[in-house]
Amino acid sequence: MFSIIKRVLIGQPLKSTQLGEQKLNKTKALAILSSDALSSVAYGPEQILLVLMTIGAAAYWLSIPIAAGILVLLLALVLSYRQVIFAYPHGGGAYVVSKENLGVSSGLLAGGALLVDYILTVAVSISAGTDAITSAFPSLHFYNVPIAIFLVIVITILNLRGITESASILAYPVYLFVLVIFIMIVAGLYQILTGKVSPDLHASIGTPVAGLSLFLLLRAFASGSSALTGVEAISNAIPNFKEPAPVNASKTLAAMGVLLALLFTGIVWLAYYYGISPKVEETVVSQIASVTFGRGTMYYIIQGITAMILVLAANTGYSAFPLLAVNLAKDKYIARMFTVRGDRLGYSNGILFLAVASILLIIVFKGQTEHLIPLYAVGVFIPFTLAQAGMLVKWIREKPAGWKVKLSINAIGALISFTVMMIFFITKFPQVWPALIFLPAIVLVFKKINKHYEAVGDQLRINPNEPDLPIEGNIMLVPVAGITHVVENTLNYAKSLSPEQIIAVYVAFDKEAEKQFEEKWNQWQPNVRLVTLYSQYRSIIQPLTKFIDTVENKAKESNYRVTVLIPQFITKKRWHNALHNQSSLLIRANLLYRKDLIVTTVPYHFKK
Amino acid sequence: MFSIIKRVLIGQPLKSTQLGEQKLNKTKALAILSSDALSSVAYGPEQILLVLMTIGAAAYWLSIPIAAGILVLLLALVLSYRQVIFAYPHGGGAYVVSKENLGVSSGLLAGGALLVDYILTVAVSISAGTDAITSAFPSLHFYNVPIAIFLVIVITILNLRGITESASILAYPVYLFVLVIFIMIVAGLYQILTGKVSPDLHASIGTPVAGLSLFLLLRAFASGSSALTGVEAISNAIPNFKEPAPVNASKTLAAMGVLLALLFTGIVWLAYYYGISPKVEETVVSQIASVTFGRGTMYYIIQGITAMILVLAANTGYSAFPLLAVNLAKDKYIARMFTVRGDRLGYSNGILFLAVASILLIIVFKGQTEHLIPLYAVGVFIPFTLAQAGMLVKWIREKPAGWKVKLSINAIGALISFTVMMIFFITKFPQVWPALIFLPAIVLVFKKINKHYEAVGDQLRINPNEPDLPIEGNIMLVPVAGITHVVENTLNYAKSLSPEQIIAVYVAFDKEAEKQFEEKWNQWQPNVRLVTLYSQYRSIIQPLTKFIDTVENKAKESNYRVTVLIPQFITKKRWHNALHNQSSLLIRANLLYRKDLIVTTVPYHFKK
Repeated sequence: MFSIIKRVLIGQPLKSTQLGEQKLNKTKALAILSSDALSSVAYGPEQILLVLMTIGAAAYWLSIPIAAGILVLLLALVLSYRQVIFAYPHGGGAYVVSKENLGVSSGLLAGGALLVDYILTVAVSISAGTDAITSAFPSLHFYNVPIAIFLVIVITILNLRGITESASILAYPVYLFVLVIFIMIVAGLYQILTGKVSPDLHASIGTPVAGLSLFLLLRAFASGSSALTGVEAISNAIPNFKEPAPVNASKTLAAMGVLLALLFTGIVWLAYYYGISPKVEETVVSQIASVTFGRGTMYYIIQGITAMILVLAANTGYSAFPLLAVNLAKDKYIARMFTVRGDRLGYSNGILFLAVASILLIIVFKGQTEHLIPLYAVGVFIPFTLAQAGMLVKWIREKPAGWKVKLSINAIGALISFTVMMIFFITKFPQVWPALIFLPAIVLVFKKINKHYEAVGDQLRINPNEPDLPIEGNIMLVPVAGITHVVENTLNYAKSLSPEQIIAVYVAFDKEAEKQFEEKWNQWQPNVRLVTLYSQYRSIIQPLTKFIDTVENKAKESNYRVTVLIPQFITKKRWHNALHNQSSLLIRANLLYRKDLIVTTVPYHFKK
Repeated sequence: MFSIIKRVLIGQPLKSTQLGEQKLNKTKALAILSSDALSSVAYGPEQILLVLMTIGAAAYWLSIPIAAGILVLLLALVLSYRQVIFAYPHGGGAYVVSKENLGVSSGLLAGGALLVDYILTVAVSISAGTDAITSAFPSLHFYNVPIAIFLVIVITILNLRGITESASILAYPVYLFVLVIFIMIVAGLYQILTGKVSPDLHASIGTPVAGLSLFLLLRAFASGSSALTGVEAISNAIPNFKEPAPVNASKTLAAMGVLLALLFTGIVWLAYYYGISPKVEETVVSQIASVTFGRGTMYYIIQGITAMILVLAANTGYSAFPLLAVNLAKDKYIARMFTVRGDRLGYSNGILFLAVASILLIIVFKGQTEHLIPLYAVGVFIPFTLAQAGMLVKWIREKPAGWKVKLSINAIGALISFTVMMIFFITKFPQVWPALIFLPAIVLVFKKINKHYEAVGDQLRINPNEPDLPIEGNIMLVPVAGITHVVENTLNYAKSLSPEQIIAVYVAFDKEAEKQFEEKWNQWQPNVRLVTLYSQYRSIIQPLTKFIDTVENKAKESNYRVTVLIPQFITKKRWHNALHNQSSLLIRANLLYRKDLIVTTVPYHFKK
């Protein structure tokens, strides 16, 4: 039943040798890895204006120089991550770069921050997309949380089906989004150039602004740079690319950078030229579209596709999280299960973990995840800074040809990233402080897990010089509840293994039954020693484990092993189990974790 | 942790030999077994008036002859059940009487009806009691369901602590209830006799009533007889009495009958004399109390104790259900677990089952269980009728001294019970029809369960003439995941049992790993045969079970048994388990229910 549902949703399993077919070409990779970054043009420019608005509409022209600064940061990030891609072609991005150049703790900090961030990406972008949808259909607003959860599940299933398949489906809306925003920008520029828009709607660049402070400028800059989250995703996901993976990945990254820069600049410029002010009830993109096209078909198309792209931004998390998890798991910092490929060759445990974690976030925050955005932005700029600082150290250490240029790029990137990060901490401390607690905690957990795996490795490893102590003999205990075929079957098995001793153990609840059973037993199996235990509290487990302790202590003296053979009848139909006391399961569960005791279940199948 | 909570709530376990101390004397038995019957005087008279009201207040005097009829029925039931107690001193009541005299199906029908009825008793009386409480504190009304569930849990814990203990606690409110109702009746009569109550409040007996029909009279009679539910409880619970149990039980039954008759008559009479009309917002008892004492302290005491007794009526279910279940379980009609005595010597499985079932009913009906009352009444009159018909047959068959008197008593009882039952079916069919479906269904399930137990018994029984086929040899399969101490430990164990053949099985996910492993293995364990399986879908279970099938088929030919030895490492700390793939548990779960395969877990305990 479960497996049929699984097949329908996920598809038939793929052979390991089909892995190559699951790799992405550049077009698809761009679609599924840049949805997060591209979608952020839908809210990034607005974030800048929201800060500037606090000192008045005259300050709006400042969005132009701020956008220029963000473009510089984008350029630095793209160039820097391009270098990361070629230097670390197996993926891992900030985690690997920091680990190799700055030390394990830095690497874990970067890795941990990104893992948390991808969970936040999914929760935040799905919530934002859901909001956009339910704003259009207010009657659905009450169902925000179930709708968001449903969307997470849909994207999860798409990703479990495999990345090429999800890329094929998800590519359309991403490219459509790019297309409609471009049309909007071009149409807007055309209207401006043909003089259809009054040039008096905005203060000209350079107008003096009252109340301007450096703090405010930096804050606007930091808020705007939240549009850059997702830029690092490609560097984590190189192994998903078709060969030559690093070349394809770097070209994809460049394409994403260009698209992001164009869309971002276009929207900032139009917003400035139209003199648009952020409104609570209408987004900046909506206002631009409304001015450009009026409230017609084109306006609604733009709104619809923007909502869709916000939901799909989650997919970047789905592409990058599992691969980053694999890197951490291979280095034994998180559970090994993240390295296992699922039926469709995706890292399904990572995908499922991400889905469950983000659904929990959505439920806990009741679908209102927007106050998580600053936390999420900080979580991106910490690995940005670490990755570029790592590259800096690498160039200084290795000094390859042209290292000075490379060093400058990374130095600038590191400096701006660090500044942005600090601005976040300074200007938004009330929302950002939890990162100071949970990031160190995550690093600590990573290290604890690593310590455990190392200890397990030590204990599993066979040392050729160690003497291999053979077992001298076996004692077999058979808990018996009566004189039945089930017991007979178990005794026959015990006898066939010819251990040194077979002991049948019977737990009696009253003295009379005890005596009777001993008599019957001696008639039936005179050669098998029977031990009867009297239980005055009607418990089987207690006297049994006490007896087993005694036997084990004695056995240990002569290097004997003790095996408990549990006679278990298997009913013909499942519901029959409810009619039996399941003592054998209970006994087994109680004995399994006891030191050195071996537990065997000897089944006897009923025929009717 | 769990066991500490259990100790605090339930108390220390008792020895089996302390069973005698848990028996009830008459005073306590009366309290816990008659709370259901006695509490019904709080609503029984009202039921009669509710029916009479439909043709007008002039008809109220008819409650007197109807009450007389009910008293006759009560007398017949008490006398009849007195005969049941002596004839069947081991308890079982209607179930045993009908089974022995009318056949198995009748017995099961009576038993099934009573089991369901006790569940209904608990649900209905707790809901009624909760309503009474929340009527006094309307702010609590929203929490009706949680309060009802809480009360069920409290009564369940009391009963799990043991019957004498619960009897000691519950006796006070029951006797208090009897006392205050008596005081009320006496005070009322005193006022009537001293002429403080106007004799014009009621129509005198014999006043002609317009619109009267036999149907209506019968309906009023049937409604009133719902006050008799719970009369049978003592006959089920004889084993809980101190010796001589039958004598004590019959005396308790007589006492209950007298109390019930007095209280019932008193309330009906006062209601008639005061000319009380049923009201939606105030019960008849409340009106009587109000007229007798005014709205003073005494009035509130009566109201409070009445609410309490309604809750405690549930306890009759707790006393009778487990004992009836034991009777059915001993005869193998329901699961054997109902015969197991818990830590405090009560039949705790029956108690817990009753609690869970009634909580489910309360949740499903959202605490509004009053429309279950007719169903519940029918469920009582079916076993009443069957029990008395059974006694009838018994007397005719056995013809003991004075059998004609006994026969007459049971014949009258059977006739009235049957009539009441039929009246319920005719006048309240819309509420009562489900009984026609679920009662036969229950009887069917009982018979199916019995068939299964009989089949198991047949298959367990050892036939001395049957040849006992010894096992010729053993093949041991060891699934291995690497060359580790865990595997070594398992192999040493396998070797110590010296089976005919040990086969290590390795599942490889790629051809390269397969070859490498084979080479390493042959160096390490040249004497243990290794079989490697290639899994192109990255599943361990599938190729493993396929291989095991092959081995088993071969083994069967020469009467060999196949054992799978699963190497399992046991981590030092619980949370470590999350870091390992638990393949061994998965393998075990998949293999356990396969035919004739023996599964052994060989633990290897990590030290750090």
